[in-house]
Amino acid sequence: MTQIAPGGTIGILGGGQLGRMLALAAANFGYRCHVFCPDKNSPAFHVADVVTIADYEDEEALEAFARAVDVATYEFENVPGVTAELVARDTLLRPGVRALKTTQDRLLEKDFLNASGVKTAPYMAFETADELQAAIKEIGRPCVAKTRRFGYDGKGQVMIKARSDIDRVIEVTGGQPAILEGFVNFDREVSVVVARSASGDVAAFPVSENVHTNHILDTTSVPAKISDMVEAKAKVMATRVANALEYVGVMAVEMFVSDGSGEIVVNEIAPRVHNSGHWTIEGAETSQFEQHIRAICDLPLGPTDARGNVRMKNLLGADILDFEPYLEDPKAHFHHYGKKEPRPGRKMGHVTWVDVK
Amino acid sequence: MTQIAPGGTIGILGGGQLGRMLALAAANFGYRCHVFCPDKNSPAFHVADVVTIADYEDEEALEAFARAVDVATYEFENVPGVTAELVARDTLLRPGVRALKTTQDRLLEKDFLNASGVKTAPYMAFETADELQAAIKEIGRPCVAKTRRFGYDGKGQVMIKARSDIDRVIEVTGGQPAILEGFVNFDREVSVVVARSASGDVAAFPVSENVHTNHILDTTSVPAKISDMVEAKAKVMATRVANALEYVGVMAVEMFVSDGSGEIVVNEIAPRVHNSGHWTIEGAETSQFEQHIRAICDLPLGPTDARGNVRMKNLLGADILDFEPYLEDPKAHFHHYGKKEPRPGRKMGHVTWVDVK
Repeated sequence: MTQIAPGGTIGILGGGQLGRMLALAAANFGYRCHVFCPDKNSPAFHVADVVTIADYEDEEALEAFARAVDVATYEFENVPGVTAELVARDTLLRPGVRALKTTQDRLLEKDFLNASGVKTAPYMAFETADELQAAIKEIGRPCVAKTRRFGYDGKGQVMIKARSDIDRVIEVTGGQPAILEGFVNFDREVSVVVARSASGDVAAFPVSENVHTNHILDTTSVPAKISDMVEAKAKVMATRVANALEYVGVMAVEMFVSDGSGEIVVNEIAPRVHNSGHWTIEGAETSQFEQHIRAICDLPLGPTDARGNVRMKNLLGADILDFEPYLEDPKAHFHHYGKKEPRPGRKMGHVTWVDVK
Repeated sequence: MTQIAPGGTIGILGGGQLGRMLALAAANFGYRCHVFCPDKNSPAFHVADVVTIADYEDEEALEAFARAVDVATYEFENVPGVTAELVARDTLLRPGVRALKTTQDRLLEKDFLNASGVKTAPYMAFETADELQAAIKEIGRPCVAKTRRFGYDGKGQVMIKARSDIDRVIEVTGGQPAILEGFVNFDREVSVVVARSASGDVAAFPVSENVHTNHILDTTSVPAKISDMVEAKAKVMATRVANALEYVGVMAVEMFVSDGSGEIVVNEIAPRVHNSGHWTIEGAETSQFEQHIRAICDLPLGPTDARGNVRMKNLLGADILDFEPYLEDPKAHFHHYGKKEPRPGRKMGHVTWVDVK
């Protein structure tokens, strides 16, 4: 596979904090970053060598971008298909178009996971109210309706417990293609951040345990409170997914775990570096951002061991203004994404505590 | 003292690898960096938010730079005095003009060190051949002649052992103000990287032991092979220097150590982050670059403990092309400065090995 040697140029679609942290990791290896984003206030622009401010449908801008870089990647899974195809025509796109297409659509994603031998919650596709009724009959309540595309942080989802919840579903999905998922009883949410390099090497980070508040990630802890056997099984599942997709780069596989049975169900996969992997910056021997750069440039993957007990907390909105205690705490590592406006719920930074073993 | 909160703008005079690594550290805290450098190929430009390409004597450009930033700093000690004064007129300059003036001139530097109770080699100023003869008579041979200003990596220096060496001195100094230093017999070269914050807090990193080849730093090792008493004494000396200068930022104090007597003589001080502190990026709980940002922004200083046994090696010239073994080595952390041309002797990157205790 084509190796991009240190000193080359990496293109990044998307200019948020993930793109920013990717650019910072790339810079340690001497790569120049070219960030493409429609928003002129993108935090990744502050640390990029070259920026393009243009729409994701701007063919001319995309072509110029693709021709200016040695390899292109992205920081979000909702890159339009046409954008990905245009970029992939003129440069290496890693991860590729297939990973994007599969993970952008909850139905394709779940079909793919089950075909790969990875268990998900039971699910059925629907569009109309009639199809929804049929699906509820099949899957039973409680269950969750989700649009097939463009959902994140709980958007486009309705939990159906009582009969009266059903009316709200079509309101939220608006008749868009959707799926109904059986509700999974679980004890904890975990995720596996796994990398697969262009040469096919795979390395999974330790399983992290995630706590969400209002559908937004609040904290990640490593190690997760699961048995060694469940830990090993979760990593095998993530590795299987990465291999089945012939994936190149870092991806996150979110899972639900039942303590009693040790059963694991995959919730969703994110074809990119992930908030639940931020702990790796100081908490693991290689950060997920460096690992993604290693993977897409076809360098050897780095070691993934945790340095100890690690905890990551997101700083949302005005949380970021109260930075002083984190800077005074000798075990805390403070991160600020350089965003100006601390709007409520906006991811402004994070803190990682490392307790060395 | 004025605190610059995360999200503010930091100006950096100088666009080399030190400026680049400062900008990367600043970005983790959400600061935007504005880098000022005459060379359009400056590696720090690749990771800066704003760049100014202009001469250090360009008053208009300097004024605009100073007005655009919340605090200014520099990555090299030969910032012209006029440049520093212009910048300091319109913004905070940290470290300040006094640190620059003192360290730019070997005579002022040695006078200052001795007045602060820190021992140096014996020295005498000279300009003419007659003054040189008188100095040699006083100090004795072997001794070293050095220009007072603009010396680095062994440039502007002549070692005087035999009578015949004397003729070469005026050739090299060209009649510029110079000093003659007594030759110090020492067993090892060490340095202390020390930070002093705007509020006057001081924190020294563990003493590092440095090996030079052809007057250029080759490797740094931590801990240095010195007794606990010498380690403590070296840190006290560096702290004394930082306090006496009312210094703000990170500085490096280079010292010679005699194993038998435990005697320490200060060789020189660098008013900036320093090559012998690169090991701190992965080898210490806080990197020297983050510590400099903390110090000049008046944030609390971070912990300085080493994470284990650490070794840093510079990659000069074509060394950088042989990167693969470092990326394969699980204990190695590879750094590439993004410079295009690997000219012989040019600092292109470095590697740090950390053996966790």
